[in-house]
Amino acid sequence: MKVGLIGFGKTGKAVASAILKHHDFELEWVLRKSPKQEDRLIADILEIDCNNQGRVYSLHNHKIEPFLDAHPVDIIIDFSSESGIFTYGKAAAQRKIKIISAVSHYDHEQEAYLKRLGEYTTVFWSPNITLGVNYLIFAAKVLKSIAPFVDIEIVEEHFKHKDGVSGTAIKIAEALGLKKSKINSVRAGGIVGKHQVIFGFKYQTIRLIHESISREAFGNGVIFVAENIIEKEKGFYQYEDIFKPFLSDKI
Amino acid sequence: MKVGLIGFGKTGKAVASAILKHHDFELEWVLRKSPKQEDRLIADILEIDCNNQGRVYSLHNHKIEPFLDAHPVDIIIDFSSESGIFTYGKAAAQRKIKIISAVSHYDHEQEAYLKRLGEYTTVFWSPNITLGVNYLIFAAKVLKSIAPFVDIEIVEEHFKHKDGVSGTAIKIAEALGLKKSKINSVRAGGIVGKHQVIFGFKYQTIRLIHESISREAFGNGVIFVAENIIEKEKGFYQYEDIFKPFLSDKI
Amino acid sequence: MKVGLIGFGKTGKAVASAILKHHDFELEWVLRKSPKQEDRLIADILEIDCNNQGRVYSLHNHKIEPFLDAHPVDIIIDFSSESGIFTYGKAAAQRKIKIISAVSHYDHEQEAYLKRLGEYTTVFWSPNITLGVNYLIFAAKVLKSIAPFVDIEIVEEHFKHKDGVSGTAIKIAEALGLKKSKINSVRAGGIVGKHQVIFGFKYQTIRLIHESISREAFGNGVIFVAENIIEKEKGFYQYEDIFKPFLSDKI
Amino acid sequence: MKVGLIGFGKTGKAVASAILKHHDFELEWVLRKSPKQEDRLIADILEIDCNNQGRVYSLHNHKIEPFLDAHPVDIIIDFSSESGIFTYGKAAAQRKIKIISAVSHYDHEQEAYLKRLGEYTTVFWSPNITLGVNYLIFAAKVLKSIAPFVDIEIVEEHFKHKDGVSGTAIKIAEALGLKKSKINSVRAGGIVGKHQVIFGFKYQTIRLIHESISREAFGNGVIFVAENIIEKEKGFYQYEDIFKPFLSDKI
Repeated sequence: MKVGLIGFGKTGKAVASAILKHHDFELEWVLRKSPKQEDRLIADILEIDCNNQGRVYSLHNHKIEPFLDAHPVDIIIDFSSESGIFTYGKAAAQRKIKIISAVSHYDHEQEAYLKRLGEYTTVFWSPNITLGVNYLIFAAKVLKSIAPFVDIEIVEEHFKHKDGVSGTAIKIAEALGLKKSKINSVRAGGIVGKHQVIFGFKYQTIRLIHESISREAFGNGVIFVAENIIEKEKGFYQYEDIFKPFLSDKI
Repeated sequence: MKVGLIGFGKTGKAVASAILKHHDFELEWVLRKSPKQEDRLIADILEIDCNNQGRVYSLHNHKIEPFLDAHPVDIIIDFSSESGIFTYGKAAAQRKIKIISAVSHYDHEQEAYLKRLGEYTTVFWSPNITLGVNYLIFAAKVLKSIAPFVDIEIVEEHFKHKDGVSGTAIKIAEALGLKKSKINSVRAGGIVGKHQVIFGFKYQTIRLIHESISREAFGNGVIFVAENIIEKEKGFYQYEDIFKPFLSDKI
Repeated sequence: MKVGLIGFGKTGKAVASAILKHHDFELEWVLRKSPKQEDRLIADILEIDCNNQGRVYSLHNHKIEPFLDAHPVDIIIDFSSESGIFTYGKAAAQRKIKIISAVSHYDHEQEAYLKRLGEYTTVFWSPNITLGVNYLIFAAKVLKSIAPFVDIEIVEEHFKHKDGVSGTAIKIAEALGLKKSKINSVRAGGIVGKHQVIFGFKYQTIRLIHESISREAFGNGVIFVAENIIEKEKGFYQYEDIFKPFLSDKI
Repeated sequence: MKVGLIGFGKTGKAVASAILKHHDFELEWVLRKSPKQEDRLIADILEIDCNNQGRVYSLHNHKIEPFLDAHPVDIIIDFSSESGIFTYGKAAAQRKIKIISAVSHYDHEQEAYLKRLGEYTTVFWSPNITLGVNYLIFAAKVLKSIAPFVDIEIVEEHFKHKDGVSGTAIKIAEALGLKKSKINSVRAGGIVGKHQVIFGFKYQTIRLIHESISREAFGNGVIFVAENIIEKEKGFYQYEDIFKPFLSDKI
């Protein structure tokens, strides 16, 4: 599978690294705003020992349509920013290139645009593309739906200097219809990231816990999504659309 | 809903107590092997202040067929032993009384008999009837099916004098296709019961944890099952059959 | 050791029950405000099968000085209320009866009175007399003193209807010089009581966790304290005074 | 404080990196067996931007006595192997250079040699030099000594491919007089390292948990030890000797 990556920040790099190490994927290029590191081999920048010949390109020096024609891919992975989709979305959809966006937030208009692109190609969006966090949300929604009366609270823990409430915790709360006041935020030392959903029944307690070990989890999330949408028809997909078939088929 | 209870051990009593406190259920009788406490009001024995007039009867002094005719119920709940089902099963099925069995173990023959009864009435069986443990197993199976490559281990903790590996932990391991060696058993002090399933990914960890607070959780489990099978047609059901509709309908 | 108990609420009863079951202690009497259950055998009220002949008496019908002379004890355990100490304190001190108070709060004047009594007899006070919570506070203070720069947060979890922040969590915070905002309170279902102190270092995290299983922990706390102060000279003692000798002697 | 480092494996590098970043320490040199990277600046190898001029030297090309005279230090930190101490120990002791050894295991003879060196200079040894693990052991011993009757179990979790039982868990078990069978080992995914000591009382449970975030914790452990032994007289010290003054002075 030929893959192009939009965005090359910290997480973008971790994702590129995960893709380079995976045999089923060929990272054709990274496309970024800044002209930094232009034309360098991605594998060299990331100090990964492999034969990959993909290079870094800048939107500064390339127009998207001829670029996509010159460097064809099956999937575009977007770790850029909210507005990134407008640079490449239409051109990609016209070429039936599948789109996986891991941008952490879109406004209504942007999300609507994503859905329109889904009329032409396969479009997937997850604001936190790790398998673990999405499973946590899914499993929590299942339990909430089975036991709508249960008390639910969220405890999230992160490193001392993380500002504000964790975006992922807010996503979990929204998915469960909880007020923000049900989120407890712990900030201490170098905790990478821990999200706990506590379900309090009268005579038993259930806890769903996700602990991040490192940023590379995003890379593996992208790979999981790519493998699961590659056969999907055009349309707009989210993580639940990937999870559901596992339920009916296999359990 | 009129309910009869077979078995009146520690857990049977906790279940009776939960049913007595619940407005939608009327506990008509307890039927037990031993003639102890025969004819006493259940509510008196359990020191619960309510108008319930259900009494304790013994199989010693009653034949099951005339007993069921004299004391009709909608559901029989079975907290007795493996062989209990043979005393009342056929008589109940003939009268279309639904059966909920919470007996912790049946051999193949006994389970086959249960399934045959399911050709005549609604039969439900769960070896651990708490909502929490069954949800844990269900959610763990979902994750295993989504990520079959993930490493899984189980840690179960119980009070010092609990003998052998927890039956629930063995159930979880079987459901996930794990060897028994993946179960770690901690025995310390008065821990009521804790089951943790650890899913180790390379860059993230997911934990599903169930903590028991008290035996009354079994009572609430019975009530949850009763509410969810009362409308079900004849057939043999397990917890997953109750959970699945929640997935398709509501998520 | 002959013991008298002041106060017979829920926790007082759990404590009486623990003492009745312990071979080294003889529960001579319970003294309470209300004349309820007066003159009944304590063992009968608590449905404990033992030879103890201690009975319930009411301050309504007894004056403290003649009462203590008629029913001599070595230790008085106080689970009553803030003002309880004024009813029996002076009379007990004059008779060299040791005092263990587990009253959860005293104002400055009351605490000063306790300390004055310590000039005449052995007086011990702990607002939460369980061994576990006091060890938690002690161990947390040790770590804070070793690593004063570490980030500390507290997470306490209790049953849904517990009002306000846990008093124990406030005690922990005070002992560590933390602001109240560092306490995160989770309220869900029937959680008996869990206190977690999280120490966040840059590259490691330490957690000290105390989980309550039941109210009987107070009884065992009283027994632990009684065994450890019985040889102590007159003076005012707290839990740390009991812990410290263990450090120098044995480690 | 001038520091020399013996050993330059993965952990040695993490320690060098922590020292380079700390203002109170000057890393004068790294001394290693292999002649790899000889004469290169340590800061360059570790890609740390600082003015430090310390270089890597090899025992291959240097004799220890003239080397220590030519490159004097206050403290030697040893992250090499069991036999490392014999290369530099005597020469260091003669020059009153303090020694901090973080070698994970010594046999009896080697430990005896360390103690003999303590007759001439300040010698410190800890097989796991992180503050957190040593505090865990210390706090666990305190609780065991307060409550010798308590049930204790250990749960340690590490990445899938870690062989054998964690050495740290074995140390904890030895310190508490526990059999190895009380250690439960979980191996899953990429868990960096978690050690939990569970104290089970009849009515309460206490858990002491240490979670590693990264190898840099060893560097901070070395710095903590160095700061606390620099004023100590000659002698053989372990972590408890550092912890104890904190107890008596400050609590």
